[in-house]
Amino acid sequence: MALYIKSVENLINEFKKLPGIGPKSAKRIVFFLLKLSQNDIVKFSQSLIEMKEKTKFCSECYGLTEEDICHICRDGSRDRKKICIVEEVSDVVIIEKTGEYKGLYHILGGLLSPIENIGPDEIRVPRLLERVKADNVEEVIIALNPTVEGESTAAYLKKMLSPLGARVTRLASGLPVGGDLEYADEVTIGRAISDRREL
Amino acid sequence: MALYIKSVENLINEFKKLPGIGPKSAKRIVFFLLKLSQNDIVKFSQSLIEMKEKTKFCSECYGLTEEDICHICRDGSRDRKKICIVEEVSDVVIIEKTGEYKGLYHILGGLLSPIENIGPDEIRVPRLLERVKADNVEEVIIALNPTVEGESTAAYLKKMLSPLGARVTRLASGLPVGGDLEYADEVTIGRAISDRREL
Repeated sequence: MALYIKSVENLINEFKKLPGIGPKSAKRIVFFLLKLSQNDIVKFSQSLIEMKEKTKFCSECYGLTEEDICHICRDGSRDRKKICIVEEVSDVVIIEKTGEYKGLYHILGGLLSPIENIGPDEIRVPRLLERVKADNVEEVIIALNPTVEGESTAAYLKKMLSPLGARVTRLASGLPVGGDLEYADEVTIGRAISDRREL
Repeated sequence: MALYIKSVENLINEFKKLPGIGPKSAKRIVFFLLKLSQNDIVKFSQSLIEMKEKTKFCSECYGLTEEDICHICRDGSRDRKKICIVEEVSDVVIIEKTGEYKGLYHILGGLLSPIENIGPDEIRVPRLLERVKADNVEEVIIALNPTVEGESTAAYLKKMLSPLGARVTRLASGLPVGGDLEYADEVTIGRAISDRREL
């Protein structure tokens, strides 16, 4: 016999799928939600739907936006001769928080991985090359995680970008190798940006 | 300037309200959700709404149910001469998991607290007394958390129930005092049920 009624069990299962949430946390969250008002639940549910419906990817950099072009690409005060390459949209926020960078971004959405059949087309390399050519970009800063996939993707990008005349740099060491950009502190990431070195 | 676009920021704020989820976890969850399909998000959102719409409180014990009477109260094989008193609906599941108890439940939904203006009527004591009288209940097992509020609520219930001829017992010590029922392991709770003692 099931321990919970079906609708509660279903919601616990939905929460268990989220990163960092185990069975006990999922249960705790659902029993917390049970005590909220109908209004609060509807608001939560609408936020979920709205987030999915409203967010689009910027047609320039693939960053998150509710318009066609994101607020960073539209911002006239930013240095359009620099492009910072990151893996995920969340990495943009991490770098923006340091306040060390005033250029544009290009979000790959993944890393090269022959095993998983992820090639240059899947990580938006053609669009990157187009942008670098069209805007005469002077510097491309590679801010990928210092993992095996990150390093090999960086090496590939260096090979593709160098013939276009752009300087290719990458974040300075300081980030622990094999670690995750998401868990580094802002000062370390800020330092890594100002100490970026030639690839 | 906001770091995130509005719909993403809203959803992060919704997740931050949940127990055990801080700003970093909320952000991580939302960026995980961004990658899910429209379908998965709609399913999640519907589970939330359904949970709130379908769950009702059992008119006998105040447990969670999708019917008028919960599956425990309807179950003819359970010992109707025993009622176990718990604070929250989630405590029922914790006790059911031990497999040590075959009686019915009564969920108070809170504990007596003069400071917060929570008196016997707010914690469903009148309905409990009705049930004990109507069914000639022989034993009432108090399974409240061993905190100050839990102990004083137990003492009050003992005073009200004794004149009705029901034996009043409570869970054996073994639960750490000042702790929370939710975090004890099943063996300890099972032992506490079989070792329950006269109040």
